[in-house]
Amino acid sequence: MTQSRTHNCNELRLSDAGKQVTLVGWFENIRKVSKNLGFVILRDFYGTTQIVVETEEMMAVIDSVNKESTISVTGEVRERSSKNTELPTGEIEVVPTSIEILGKCTHNELPFEINRSKEADENTRLKYRYLDLRNPEVKSKIILRSKIVAELRASMIAHDFMEITTPILTCSSPEGARDYLVPARNHPGKFYALPQAPQQFKQILMASGFDRYFQIAPCFRDEDARADRSPGEFYQLDMEMAFASQEDVFAVIEDVLPPIFAKYGVYNSASTAPFVRIPYLESMDKYGSDKPDLRIDLVLQDATEVMADCGFGPFEGNVVKAIVVDNLTATRKQIDAMIAEVEVATAQKTYWFKLDENGEIVGGIAKFLQERKQAVIDALGLKPGDFVGLAAGPLLVAQKTAGVFRKLLGAAAEGHMKKDTYEFCWIVDFPMYEIGEESGELEFCHNPFSMPQGGMDSLKNQEPLDILAYQYDLVCNGVELSSGAIRNHDPEIMIEAFKLVGLGEDDVKAKFPAMYNAFTYGAPPHGGIAPGVDRMVMLIAGEEAIREVIPFPMNKNAQDIMMDAPATVDQKQLDDVHIAIVMPKED
Amino acid sequence: MTQSRTHNCNELRLSDAGKQVTLVGWFENIRKVSKNLGFVILRDFYGTTQIVVETEEMMAVIDSVNKESTISVTGEVRERSSKNTELPTGEIEVVPTSIEILGKCTHNELPFEINRSKEADENTRLKYRYLDLRNPEVKSKIILRSKIVAELRASMIAHDFMEITTPILTCSSPEGARDYLVPARNHPGKFYALPQAPQQFKQILMASGFDRYFQIAPCFRDEDARADRSPGEFYQLDMEMAFASQEDVFAVIEDVLPPIFAKYGVYNSASTAPFVRIPYLESMDKYGSDKPDLRIDLVLQDATEVMADCGFGPFEGNVVKAIVVDNLTATRKQIDAMIAEVEVATAQKTYWFKLDENGEIVGGIAKFLQERKQAVIDALGLKPGDFVGLAAGPLLVAQKTAGVFRKLLGAAAEGHMKKDTYEFCWIVDFPMYEIGEESGELEFCHNPFSMPQGGMDSLKNQEPLDILAYQYDLVCNGVELSSGAIRNHDPEIMIEAFKLVGLGEDDVKAKFPAMYNAFTYGAPPHGGIAPGVDRMVMLIAGEEAIREVIPFPMNKNAQDIMMDAPATVDQKQLDDVHIAIVMPKED
Repeated sequence: MTQSRTHNCNELRLSDAGKQVTLVGWFENIRKVSKNLGFVILRDFYGTTQIVVETEEMMAVIDSVNKESTISVTGEVRERSSKNTELPTGEIEVVPTSIEILGKCTHNELPFEINRSKEADENTRLKYRYLDLRNPEVKSKIILRSKIVAELRASMIAHDFMEITTPILTCSSPEGARDYLVPARNHPGKFYALPQAPQQFKQILMASGFDRYFQIAPCFRDEDARADRSPGEFYQLDMEMAFASQEDVFAVIEDVLPPIFAKYGVYNSASTAPFVRIPYLESMDKYGSDKPDLRIDLVLQDATEVMADCGFGPFEGNVVKAIVVDNLTATRKQIDAMIAEVEVATAQKTYWFKLDENGEIVGGIAKFLQERKQAVIDALGLKPGDFVGLAAGPLLVAQKTAGVFRKLLGAAAEGHMKKDTYEFCWIVDFPMYEIGEESGELEFCHNPFSMPQGGMDSLKNQEPLDILAYQYDLVCNGVELSSGAIRNHDPEIMIEAFKLVGLGEDDVKAKFPAMYNAFTYGAPPHGGIAPGVDRMVMLIAGEEAIREVIPFPMNKNAQDIMMDAPATVDQKQLDDVHIAIVMPKED
Repeated sequence: MTQSRTHNCNELRLSDAGKQVTLVGWFENIRKVSKNLGFVILRDFYGTTQIVVETEEMMAVIDSVNKESTISVTGEVRERSSKNTELPTGEIEVVPTSIEILGKCTHNELPFEINRSKEADENTRLKYRYLDLRNPEVKSKIILRSKIVAELRASMIAHDFMEITTPILTCSSPEGARDYLVPARNHPGKFYALPQAPQQFKQILMASGFDRYFQIAPCFRDEDARADRSPGEFYQLDMEMAFASQEDVFAVIEDVLPPIFAKYGVYNSASTAPFVRIPYLESMDKYGSDKPDLRIDLVLQDATEVMADCGFGPFEGNVVKAIVVDNLTATRKQIDAMIAEVEVATAQKTYWFKLDENGEIVGGIAKFLQERKQAVIDALGLKPGDFVGLAAGPLLVAQKTAGVFRKLLGAAAEGHMKKDTYEFCWIVDFPMYEIGEESGELEFCHNPFSMPQGGMDSLKNQEPLDILAYQYDLVCNGVELSSGAIRNHDPEIMIEAFKLVGLGEDDVKAKFPAMYNAFTYGAPPHGGIAPGVDRMVMLIAGEEAIREVIPFPMNKNAQDIMMDAPATVDQKQLDDVHIAIVMPKED
């Protein structure tokens, strides 16, 4: 066997000068000064080291291979004459007495330059993902993901949670998204499905007597790709606790996530426990969103009373929401650009005016407000120089539109957005029921399996639309990381909850039979949450594209073009599992 | 919300006497002494605590629910008059002032008694797995698995390995077993396959510049169930190292596994590094197996020369292998039983004789050896009292048959088998090629992608059947935990290795195109192994049935009868993914 490495490529320092060493790695580049002098960059997983080729013999070896070949270099460590202070190994170089070729790169040209792989087109990057991953910048995101996942696990275990892996070949479940099917060889005409989430299994684990469960769980939904959603598979930090209240679940998450965000994040601080809890209705009212970015200190004010009848057509008969911003130095053009951006996001127009240094209402819809100037100033508490953004419509539309405007204004104005931090909050007290937009009837608002606050008593005695659920969302910097809930573990309360929307016991049983059956044998109160791992890593890495935090992502068409998946299979494989292909008819 | 627990059911001690506490858990049982005196066992994940019901009021609450309901008990801790020293909480009891029902068990009768669930028939256990798992003995195996996996992970990370999750929706690969197929909605007629192992991905990670990879990897093979193989999915501790030799891989495994086996195992000691390395041919020769149980100190001796021509028909023209055992006190009946057991396992007969206390050859095939008694004694080094087991046949048959006999004799004889320990070894130096039994031509012995020892040089200059591969097996107590190899990372050597068995570059490329392509861009020498997690947990737990170490196992017919998987699906689901069912024709 070859002499193995004595050091990695990120290890040698000035104090190592004079040592005989062996390094191994990729021949990244050479700067050739003459036929017997050249500076080679040797790269491995850990870093790079400069190799000085000073003899024709060594140069001949290097010349015999293409860049990106793997080599082994044995020689002496020497102090560099011109040091590179930006490189950990920048004070030394290695003078080789032998260079051995370990693995030839047989291509003279690469599909892209390794260190500029992010500039290549996406399909080329994905096809040559093994070259893309050699780029330290790309690789660093995968390393980051690995560290984050390891630390999430360690922290959950330190909080007395047990990781239990639940089946991947399981059954189709009515959880909303489309299932991936797997035909069953031993059961002609039947199919396994890949789990959309281990929801039923984790609740069954609670009914099985486990106390604190977690899993870095692979989940599968056959949905089309989005920037923040990879097609196919994704991972959740799935957790569930027996005999737990909402506050018990919150306490764990508040303890586990912030240190990891602060340690590995592009921002190095994060909310500490307890996170702000914001009731759903309050969040809509103050932030125009159920996933508010709390780094921004702006809040919505109601301007309906003072403005709806001001004569400005779009306000007429509508709710008007205002966002007052001081220190907004945006030009007219920048304001127009923001308004255009809100319209793209919401299909709604927004409006504005300013109170100038003299206390006069100017710009935007100023002329409609001149007559009631003082009332407007008083109602919104305006100071000279304040900018006022406005949105109007039915309540929810005005709120949501203003919510989007708020985020843009917060980012644009001086001093209204904390940078460099992760602001977490809980959105709580979601309503249990709503009147369905299409049906006009009472429907479950979110998850029919969440526990109504007040239990059986409120189901029997409260106005259904007033009943709140133990249902909550975890939000960080305006990104929803997960929904969670205290579950309805009581078959009687479950049946009552379904009764209110006109369904019976059979419907309860039909939805999740195994879980319902388990609950009839005595279940503990329990609850949990399942923050998305990919989404957390994106936030921590400061990445906009989910593909950057997945080792081998599929492309937008749900293909792995490196592996050539999906692919055709043999007829025998189809026969074995009792299926035939039905090609769609051409249009 | 209900008052949450102050302690778990395994926590209270004598020193807690006098405290007001709240416990929660399952109402396991009641021993009723009178209408206002009863002893309730409350069970949670952590243990049990005795609750003394002393009032009619509390008794009425308990009487109102079935066993296995979940309850919350608030009351005072009191010293027990009759202590149970076998229970951690056996010195105290709790006298309730309030009992609250948290989750009713609506069934008067359970399908089986929780603490005797292992006696129930398998389908009942699996259907009510949530009740089965409430049995502390059953649950303990799942807890053990979780701890082992967590500790494997922690140890790999401590050894500078990074966990990287590789895709689960990937492509069909020719790795021997049958693939699970997943029809691709966006690509009519094409299929993903679930990975049989992340083999290609981990090797591509090496070519991507990662240095030390591992993964607790879900693997999927559509094979029928066996005692040690669950249908569907299983887990491997998959690992791979760049720029590594066989010894580097061995060193990691030797450091990671034994402490975990010793800490959690039914036996509390394990081999220390370095494990014994046994060349494949030597292992077959000495132990009649390539997975020798080294707890047994017996070795095979060759008796061909001294016995083949003794006139005993089955020896004629065959190889004869002998196992000499002192201290075998087995009766004639026990010997016959062993011989019958070997025949069941191998379809081969075995034979025996003894040297009695007077130095006479007696029993079994003694009469054929009387004439050459001294030669036999000298050849096998026999002492009075020695038992000699014999197997005959062509070399491999004689070896394997004797190997099975050896294990039975080792277990039966006094002093020839270490108990209470995990004996690891490496089987090394597997041949690269063999003459195929069916084809009569040169074939790869194991994995065509292992590196031949001596590389290109030995391929070009050695007799093919003499070439050894860097291919190894990890064995513990006679169980093969994994095969591994230093891989052939060099496309030129790969092509040469294939040329020897009459295949060309196209065949290399066709087998694993992505991996081969990656290697042409400069790959490091690398190698690894992937010990089976389920199998390791079985060994550590001392379990014979793999289902005992899987949280939600399928039954032998690859069904999850609790979840009802596999199941029929809607026509729309089939249409979405462009397939139709083809029911097999009735016979």
